[in-house]
Parts: sequence; C-alpha cells; structure tokens
Amino acid sequence: MMIGAPIPLRILGTGVSTPKQNVSSNELDQRLGLAEGTTFQKTGIQSRFLSTTETAAQIGSEACNLALKNASLRREDIDCLICCSATMDQGLPYNAAMILAEMGDSSGRVTAFDINASCMSFLAALDTVGYLVAAEKYTHVLLVSADIATYGVNWDDLREGGIFGDGAAAVVVRKSTSSESSSLRHSNMKTWTEGVKHCQIRGGGTRLHPLRDRAAFESALTFEMNGKAVFKLANRYLPDFINRSLSECELTLEQIDLFVPHQASKLALEHLAKKLKVPDEKIIRIFQTFGNQVGASLPTALHYGIETQKIKRGNTIMLVGTGAGLTMGTIILTY
Amino acid sequence: MMIGAPIPLRILGTGVSTPKQNVSSNELDQRLGLAEGTTFQKTGIQSRFLSTTETAAQIGSEACNLALKNASLRREDIDCLICCSATMDQGLPYNAAMILAEMGDSSGRVTAFDINASCMSFLAALDTVGYLVAAEKYTHVLLVSADIATYGVNWDDLREGGIFGDGAAAVVVRKSTSSESSSLRHSNMKTWTEGVKHCQIRGGGTRLHPLRDRAAFESALTFEMNGKAVFKLANRYLPDFINRSLSECELTLEQIDLFVPHQASKLALEHLAKKLKVPDEKIIRIFQTFGNQVGASLPTALHYGIETQKIKRGNTIMLVGTGAGLTMGTIILTY
Repeated sequence: MMIGAPIPLRILGTGVSTPKQNVSSNELDQRLGLAEGTTFQKTGIQSRFLSTTETAAQIGSEACNLALKNASLRREDIDCLICCSATMDQGLPYNAAMILAEMGDSSGRVTAFDINASCMSFLAALDTVGYLVAAEKYTHVLLVSADIATYGVNWDDLREGGIFGDGAAAVVVRKSTSSESSSLRHSNMKTWTEGVKHCQIRGGGTRLHPLRDRAAFESALTFEMNGKAVFKLANRYLPDFINRSLSECELTLEQIDLFVPHQASKLALEHLAKKLKVPDEKIIRIFQTFGNQVGASLPTALHYGIETQKIKRGNTIMLVGTGAGLTMGTIILTY
Repeated sequence: MMIGAPIPLRILGTGVSTPKQNVSSNELDQRLGLAEGTTFQKTGIQSRFLSTTETAAQIGSEACNLALKNASLRREDIDCLICCSATMDQGLPYNAAMILAEMGDSSGRVTAFDINASCMSFLAALDTVGYLVAAEKYTHVLLVSADIATYGVNWDDLREGGIFGDGAAAVVVRKSTSSESSSLRHSNMKTWTEGVKHCQIRGGGTRLHPLRDRAAFESALTFEMNGKAVFKLANRYLPDFINRSLSECELTLEQIDLFVPHQASKLALEHLAKKLKVPDEKIIRIFQTFGNQVGASLPTALHYGIETQKIKRGNTIMLVGTGAGLTMGTIILTY
C-alpha cells in the first residue's frame, strides 16, 4: 500500500519477443484429434506462440534488446536487470543471470536479481524498482519477464493447458525528471493464501524432487488449477481491492485512461470489464493472439498498449491482475 | 552501488530452523561406504542437517516464527514477507506464498514476493528492503531464506554434495528511529556472467523440463560446480570488490567489527580470511556444524553472530559472499 507522494518513474521503452512457432487453435484441434473449433470454443484464443527450441533466457534477452532499442539506449547504459518471471529457466542460477549471460554481458557492472510473485511478478518488480530509482540506487533498470508454459501444461485439458502461450517482455525505466509527469502513483499487492493450492505446479522444486520421491514427482509435472475456486476468490476480493486502490490515490474509475490487465483467461477479462463497468476500448486485450503468457502477460499487454498508441504520454493507466498465491495487485501510473 | 546517506534500517530479531536429522561426517562415511574420516577430510564439516520429511516452507515458516518471537512481534505486525531462497519449494507459486500459507496467514493484509540472487538472495533482499522501509512502504518486513539441498546434490562426489546442508533463517526489520544508529551503510552486488555455468542445476526449470527432453532432464538433476573456475573468478574480483565497498563508505577493514561471510566452503572461508588479513575471531564461521546452506547460509550466520553476542548493537559488520551467477555482494551495516 502506498499513500503518499507519487514515485518519479518513467518507462523509456518496451520490447517483446515470442518463440517462432505460432499455433492456431485449428492446428491445435488437429494435433489433439479434436473437432475443428473445439480449442477456440474452450479457450477464446485464435493463436498463441509455443516454444520448440527457444529457452526463456533467449526470448528474455531478445525482449531486453528490443526494449533498449525503443528507449534509444545501449546495453552499457543499464546498471540493473531484474527478471520478473513466474517460472525458472533452470534450477540454479536465477533467471536474471541467465538472461544477462544470454545478452552477452559479462562486464561485472550490472546488478542482477529476480523478483517472483507468479503472474504478478512484473507488477511487484515495477513497484519495487520505483523506490530504487527514486533513491538513485540505479539509473537505468531493465525489467524482463520470460515464461515458457508449453512444457508445463496438460494439453489433454484445454481449459488448463489450452489457455497458455509463451513469451517475454521487457521494460526500461529511469527516474523521471522534474519536468516529466511520468510517475508511479499507487501500488498494492496482497496475497490470500487460502488460494495457495488453487493454481500450482507441485513439482519443479525441492518438495517433490525426482531424487526425493519419484512417483510423487511424476504426478506433479504440470500446472493444476481450480478455476472455479480462483474465480470465486477473485470475485470476492478484487472489486474492493481495485476501488480501494483508486480511492487511496484520489482517483475515480473514469479517470483511468486505460486498464492493462493480466491476460488470465477470456472469462477473467470479460468479468473484469463487466464488474468494473469499463467500456471495452479502455481495456488492453491481447489474449486472443497470445493466450495467457504467465508472468510475461502483463508487460506484453503494456508493450502493445504503448506500441499501438492506445497508451499515450500523460495517460493514467492501471495495471491489474491476479496470480498464483493467490495474489492480487494493482499499479496506477502516469505514463 | 550506494554512495550516499545511510539507510535507516534496524534488524529487530532473527531466527533459524533446520530439519530434525543431524548427520555427522562419520555417519555419512558409513552410508557411502567410505573409510571413517573421509567426508570430514574432504569437506571440513563435522555435521550438517539434512531433510527427511521437511519442506523448505516448513523450516522457513519455523524460522519466521522464531524471528518474530525474538523481535517481540506477532505475525499480525508484519505487512510484508520476502522469501530470499536460492531454490524453489515447488514450481508455482513462489516461495513467499508457500511460507505465508505454512504460517497460517490468509488475512490478505500481507505483501509477499521472492527475491532470488542464488546464494546472495538474502543480501539482495536486505538491500532492497532498506529502500522500501525507509520510504515507509512497509512497517515490519520478514525476510526469510529456506533451502533444501539434500535432494539436489550428488552424494557420490563429496567435494560437491558433501559440502551442503539444509536450513532456514529469518530476519525481521523496520525503519530505524532517529535515536537509533542502526543503518545500512553500503551495499553492492554485481554479476559476472562469465561464471554463469560454473555453479548450476541445469534441470528444475523450463529449459530441461522432463516433458520437453526426458534424457536431458535426467542428466541435469543435481548441482554442478567447477570449483577451480569459481575460485579463480572470486580470487580475481572479490578482494577489489570488498576494498571498493569499504572506500565508498569511507571505512577501513579495521573498522569492520565482524565479517559475516556466506559459508561457501572451508577453503573459501579460509581464503577470505587470509586474503583480507582479518583475524579469525572477526569472522563468523558456522560451516563446520551446518555446511553450506545455500541461500540460508548468510542469514543463519548472521543469526548466530547476533545470538552469541559476537555482533552487538552499534557494531559495524560486513555481509559478504559469492553465489551462482557468478554473483558477488557486500553489505556494510551498523547493527
């Protein structure tokens, strides 16, 4: 919670990257032996990008380079790189080191670490970095989310597996100058652990390690979701959460120029619009052509909002979403 | 890098937890069919704690409760929990949500996220949280590292597997009052990615996922280290790194009351003392009875420094270490 002076934070550039392979829902129907139209009907997605050979570090590195280019900066201008993915590229070291290595930086001049709050990772990192650049700890910071969902979902259950896509998105930020209106005006992120088991991948860590309990590990390789329970929790808490965020920074819903939601699912996006009574054109929607890109979803949506000039300098926008935890978050910022 | 006013940060309480099972090196010799004395000779460790049934979230939660008790606080006083482990408990959600759930908190009042910089995670988190509490974003923050190494190391190679132990450590911090001298005086953490492959667990993420490439995954389950290469890199950069940290906050090595190093290995600890020409009694050493506890190593050493009153209020201490990345870090703080 932040009730105070806005944090002088400016987004200088954004960039996105995906794996090469674009898979339409009709193609997925064929692969899975389903009647044409099944995948689209169940997911609301027309196509998504799915990794074949690409790693999270590769697409993360590409997104970083594009964000730097858009910001008219070089890699050498960056003194901090924060990776804010929901998943790990490998067990050790952390993602930011893997991406920095992929970018070819071994200067020893960059501070690198990860911030992880599942699908709210970018939101948590953007909030945190605001304080770091405001205090002039770092000058130019790269935030990057890169998640490969392809191999961690059950493709036999389209309501779970079928909603995901792979991708990476990066954002370069610095402290605003006194003549710039860009600022982080409010942020809030909270975790309701009654939902901790509603979205999970039980394997992939030390709890169900293959050398600890092979059978348990093999049963825990893919994402598990209790969609109804998530929906119920989000429905109970999210509207109040959003309204409190607005009132704490003395804004009304109408004063938000654009909403950038986590692209969780077609249902989640529709419900958000309906519940908040926000017109369609005020919501950034990329779900149909990208799917739910896990942690990369929010910054990818932000990138397309900026690239298509729906988000303009001086606009006040709200990033909003829920993620595994169950974690809810909002950021209100002036771009 | 921070060259500026000290950050008003006060450590209120610390706590540690380990799995129940304590394994002596002689016992390990028997288990592995080695001559008595082999494990101790190769590792310099007398005993370490190894998990049987315990999860990282369980020992993390216990460490948090003990830190709260030492700080005379209740769980309800905490508004932020940052998990700073080097490894994941499970693939999703993030560790802080798992620990918060294990603590029984579902109040929806706590901001929870992870900060990961491998064995420097606690250092990265303590530095970051300094800015957050200084700005009064949060009042009381729990930092907790909890790593289970047992299942991710190759016990056939004692110079790799034999050096590790499991554990968790937590620290509660708040902003210092104007009458308290406690402060974070300097921090620096940098990553040299030329060493990114020197310490790694190649499996455990999306890169070598069992559903992506089973054979590659099975060959990548445990920690791999090129000890000589790590030593060479650390030897090349760490002494200058430490001296620059000291000079940037206008302190000499003699003005540091105590050094709290990451307990990487017997050799690393001995080399640090020798290189810096620091007397033994100024270095916190818990390696012999805990081993290298990965991310939990640094805060566990800090806890024992404080508990044994080697670290007293008003003392200036240096946290220092290297971790997978290859990442080097220092924090200089007045306790």
